[in-house]
Amino acid sequence: MISVGIVGGTGYTGVELLRLLLRHPNVQVNVLTSRTEDGRRVDDMFPSLRGHTDLKYSDLNIEQLKQCDVVFFATPHGVAMKHAEELVAANTKVIDLAADFRLQNLVQFEKWYGMQHACPELLKDSVYGLSELNREKIKQANVIGNPGCYPTTVQLGLAPLFKHSDTLVKPESIIIDAKSGVSGAGRKASMGMIYTENADNFKAYGVAGHRHHPEIVEALENISGQTGVFDQILFVPHLVPMIRGMLSTIYVDLTDAGAAVDLQTWYEQFYANESFVDVMPENSSPETRSVRGANQLRIALYKPQPKKLVVLVAQDNLVKGAAGQAVQNMNLMFSFAETAGLEGIGLLP
Amino acid sequence: MISVGIVGGTGYTGVELLRLLLRHPNVQVNVLTSRTEDGRRVDDMFPSLRGHTDLKYSDLNIEQLKQCDVVFFATPHGVAMKHAEELVAANTKVIDLAADFRLQNLVQFEKWYGMQHACPELLKDSVYGLSELNREKIKQANVIGNPGCYPTTVQLGLAPLFKHSDTLVKPESIIIDAKSGVSGAGRKASMGMIYTENADNFKAYGVAGHRHHPEIVEALENISGQTGVFDQILFVPHLVPMIRGMLSTIYVDLTDAGAAVDLQTWYEQFYANESFVDVMPENSSPETRSVRGANQLRIALYKPQPKKLVVLVAQDNLVKGAAGQAVQNMNLMFSFAETAGLEGIGLLP
Amino acid sequence: MISVGIVGGTGYTGVELLRLLLRHPNVQVNVLTSRTEDGRRVDDMFPSLRGHTDLKYSDLNIEQLKQCDVVFFATPHGVAMKHAEELVAANTKVIDLAADFRLQNLVQFEKWYGMQHACPELLKDSVYGLSELNREKIKQANVIGNPGCYPTTVQLGLAPLFKHSDTLVKPESIIIDAKSGVSGAGRKASMGMIYTENADNFKAYGVAGHRHHPEIVEALENISGQTGVFDQILFVPHLVPMIRGMLSTIYVDLTDAGAAVDLQTWYEQFYANESFVDVMPENSSPETRSVRGANQLRIALYKPQPKKLVVLVAQDNLVKGAAGQAVQNMNLMFSFAETAGLEGIGLLP
Amino acid sequence: MISVGIVGGTGYTGVELLRLLLRHPNVQVNVLTSRTEDGRRVDDMFPSLRGHTDLKYSDLNIEQLKQCDVVFFATPHGVAMKHAEELVAANTKVIDLAADFRLQNLVQFEKWYGMQHACPELLKDSVYGLSELNREKIKQANVIGNPGCYPTTVQLGLAPLFKHSDTLVKPESIIIDAKSGVSGAGRKASMGMIYTENADNFKAYGVAGHRHHPEIVEALENISGQTGVFDQILFVPHLVPMIRGMLSTIYVDLTDAGAAVDLQTWYEQFYANESFVDVMPENSSPETRSVRGANQLRIALYKPQPKKLVVLVAQDNLVKGAAGQAVQNMNLMFSFAETAGLEGIGLLP
Repeated sequence: MISVGIVGGTGYTGVELLRLLLRHPNVQVNVLTSRTEDGRRVDDMFPSLRGHTDLKYSDLNIEQLKQCDVVFFATPHGVAMKHAEELVAANTKVIDLAADFRLQNLVQFEKWYGMQHACPELLKDSVYGLSELNREKIKQANVIGNPGCYPTTVQLGLAPLFKHSDTLVKPESIIIDAKSGVSGAGRKASMGMIYTENADNFKAYGVAGHRHHPEIVEALENISGQTGVFDQILFVPHLVPMIRGMLSTIYVDLTDAGAAVDLQTWYEQFYANESFVDVMPENSSPETRSVRGANQLRIALYKPQPKKLVVLVAQDNLVKGAAGQAVQNMNLMFSFAETAGLEGIGLLP
Repeated sequence: MISVGIVGGTGYTGVELLRLLLRHPNVQVNVLTSRTEDGRRVDDMFPSLRGHTDLKYSDLNIEQLKQCDVVFFATPHGVAMKHAEELVAANTKVIDLAADFRLQNLVQFEKWYGMQHACPELLKDSVYGLSELNREKIKQANVIGNPGCYPTTVQLGLAPLFKHSDTLVKPESIIIDAKSGVSGAGRKASMGMIYTENADNFKAYGVAGHRHHPEIVEALENISGQTGVFDQILFVPHLVPMIRGMLSTIYVDLTDAGAAVDLQTWYEQFYANESFVDVMPENSSPETRSVRGANQLRIALYKPQPKKLVVLVAQDNLVKGAAGQAVQNMNLMFSFAETAGLEGIGLLP
Repeated sequence: MISVGIVGGTGYTGVELLRLLLRHPNVQVNVLTSRTEDGRRVDDMFPSLRGHTDLKYSDLNIEQLKQCDVVFFATPHGVAMKHAEELVAANTKVIDLAADFRLQNLVQFEKWYGMQHACPELLKDSVYGLSELNREKIKQANVIGNPGCYPTTVQLGLAPLFKHSDTLVKPESIIIDAKSGVSGAGRKASMGMIYTENADNFKAYGVAGHRHHPEIVEALENISGQTGVFDQILFVPHLVPMIRGMLSTIYVDLTDAGAAVDLQTWYEQFYANESFVDVMPENSSPETRSVRGANQLRIALYKPQPKKLVVLVAQDNLVKGAAGQAVQNMNLMFSFAETAGLEGIGLLP
Repeated sequence: MISVGIVGGTGYTGVELLRLLLRHPNVQVNVLTSRTEDGRRVDDMFPSLRGHTDLKYSDLNIEQLKQCDVVFFATPHGVAMKHAEELVAANTKVIDLAADFRLQNLVQFEKWYGMQHACPELLKDSVYGLSELNREKIKQANVIGNPGCYPTTVQLGLAPLFKHSDTLVKPESIIIDAKSGVSGAGRKASMGMIYTENADNFKAYGVAGHRHHPEIVEALENISGQTGVFDQILFVPHLVPMIRGMLSTIYVDLTDAGAAVDLQTWYEQFYANESFVDVMPENSSPETRSVRGANQLRIALYKPQPKKLVVLVAQDNLVKGAAGQAVQNMNLMFSFAETAGLEGIGLLP
């Protein structure tokens, strides 16, 4: 049993971490912080937890957090980087679900998040927590930057094309038409998020630029070893009137070499040993509800033209796209079974 | 490990049983039948199960079912009663999620379900599977009639008023204004159930009469020991544009004795030892999403007038209102921990 | 052509007034105010209006408003009563869609709205704008208190029982189990209203007390001429995951006299000449979508027991429950056809 | 006043035609047919129409239809072509909302619709009813093939790029990532359409091929005058959990010439005189709800890279994508004001 702290327990990634960690066989959640709810029982705020925990929110107390083996930051961008060094110095591992440790490129970080990085040295030592692609580094890491939800779908959807080869696709052709449920925007009282502004409605957003674009670019550069070719990929996110769920429809031009490969088999082999990545049979269409509440990502492939590939990637943005992947990373860091606490089946219907 | 069979695995209660039983520590699902999908993998039909099972549908084969320790019938009304005797004779327990073993009153059964009962003798020996109220009988039962979803909310919402006393309320005053998500109607291709007929819409249905009315009457008679007083209670169900979830708003006139009792404490004590019934604090409003996917029922009480009680009862109609309660009954019948396989936390948001 | 002003044009009743008034044959909207959006085009805020108007928001300027023949207040409670006297003195009629002119009982007003009334004398001269019940007074009125959405359903649902007789029902038995879409709460950035807190969810709210209770009591007293008997009626509102729509399920105990009357015919005759109240045939269930966007209210009656009546009442809370009824009142005040601008058909599906 | 008939009045395009035509100043709907509902009042089936019409369904009677000036076919594919010749011979104009007169390429028609065409000669004389692009021909037409919903968004979204020039874009690069509400699939009792299979869910469908692909190809060939270059465009439709609404996100590679043009101005000028096509200001995102119920299509343009164009196109699939465009075509054919009966404002929220 390790001791776990969660900083920022009033948002959706916070309560999702609790849903997973309170049933995890190897952990005990001992600290749960909130700036606004100090002293309140968490199950008063989230009655779904009634009967499962007596935890109360407390103000962030760094000494308390240092007693933990690992601290999750389910906070706005910029919080984790203020405390990470002190925690690591106390031998407490840090998993940040915000963006503080996602981008190595500090120019991009400052541009998109509007703040200077507080600990660039620690950032260099941190590991980008895309579990399947960086597994060995994650096992050794003290600080994890848990990936953004959209970038998770793109990386796992495209990694097989780059991992063993740099000649299958034309990288500059990549178009990511992505769709997310509303919980991707967090638990915030803003006009744009209210029910009556989103129900029975569909729209694109962030077309002129979105924070996940530089993260996708940097990640694909790391995966492929190629630089300078991903900057012009298009990424257009859309908002779906649903609570959870994310589907990325990715369009890629194949090279002659790529067109000659049996990509269905290629993908199946690439992910053959992965518990949480499912390459579906040909002619499948991954539905977001098939992964509702589950730490699972499903992929399907289509070649509507000999040299054009369509990759469909579905996940629950709060699980494999956030809290679930964070727990998966924790499992790796502490040598637990990678699937511990993550074996729940998606809620369908 | 016991061996389990499920008859009728293509509906929502069937796939929900699988979601719960595939993660249950004490059972192995060995048989899954379907008239229409013989030979098909269940995870082809319900991709949420991919990676969790290799089960295939098979035609109903009574000899196979006899090899099971228990068989769940997640079928239309009238199927379980055709096979129950033969299974019981083979020492296989039966849990019917349809109505075949809910009503002891055969006149009502024939009136509301349009069929004669196939095994009235076995019906007499069967037990009505409202786990909390009939626990000891369930432990000994060979055949369980798993309660209807609405009747579960009514019984657990009103039982404390009758169990220790027959003088707290005026039974003839009871009004049940009930609201259900669409999954309560099952997985059926009928015009009334299509998305565009239900989304962004609200209506009452079955106002002139609903099958759950006689079940509620019979159940309240059994709970209270009173007869002839419940026939005139009103039960008006409504359809909510949501997938899962049920809320019953129950109105009861209190007697002078009832008005004098601290009903909040009374209810809390009545359910003090129950894992799956949650009496919420005063001024609470149970939301259906707080039990989404969880075998949990939440109750809140209000007294807007000194002699008028409002009882709010929320559950997930597919879990505590169907498959979850069926598993709870199985746990009782086989002396497993009553909570085994039912400890999942509700999915919020 | 009359000249119209709208105070508070950024909320849902404001934009709904615009949807109706911009297509109204007898009016010109000349003023549209907002404290926060001064100078902004209204179709920039609400693109549904693009191509239909060049109106811009302006700060509230009382001199401008005095140039109007009528001013609608689509504002929070407490705004209209600050300006009404000055407008009336300038011969400008006032229609308040908030609560300032709904309650004659000032004790109740102060209790529920937390403010003292600014113009109690004008309040006495104002008319409660339930168009069908107060038509003649409305025609003569200078100030209209437009009814609350819930009270509209209750009054039109129960008026026939009281209007010609005080012996048909037991008034103290009335229970109103009401359900509203989320737009009933307005356009406000609060946590309780965000999409992910309301979608796929159902709950009661305001069970311990709701502002519309005293309005319902006062209105039923006026309709029936009886006092002191309505205070104990129960009113329990619920929140439905839909945008628009309201259904009230009303339970009433009939007297012997009431049980002997053919209430279906009674209601049909009562509303025979009304354009906007539809008494549906027996065994109907009014769906909220059947009135989506339409100034229409539909009623259906059931007698599940000889002496128990169930009245189902459906409307669009933003139209017959707010902006539509306000326009209907304006039509009466200015001797336009009562249906002018209100003939649109409900949007189904 | 012209006399109108509607064949197939029980589907969503049928009831939407009624919603528009019953309020149209120049028409009288005299015939409404249904194979299954002969003799039933249409407002019994669709209570939203109560108070607006006394129409009853009748069996299809060709002599009755010949008395009409125009007949709309809101039927499955293959019905209109059986009756069109006889109607045209009787001087009755025909507007088919299904696919019988959309494709001139009979090989494609037979491939995608699985039937031989019944009147290929008449097909040659028919006009494809994309009102804005074929206005003059429509005015002279006897038979109109009303466009598919997706093709309408694509044509109006791309027409400016081709109409005055063939050198602005690389046609083979076009990718259409389209999203539709569920009503696009019509009113059909199939398992895939039920509420619980679609709510809170998102998926692609028809990725391997969709009937609207050949229609898009043929239409773009006609618009551009180029052939052989559009066959390889990608079209991937998705299903959004909403009732109405369609958004197409279209990706196009620009040529050097195209990159040099101010496309925002180019589009605004192209559609300057159109009532139903709205080129939104830069940085807009057209929401489907902004056109809910309205015969309106909104376009926004983005150039995230100097040579890459993203075109966002939103419409209500049942209005500008079906019934509204059909009425617009009728207005053209009978020299009514093009906007007659189509001036309703979108329902927001």
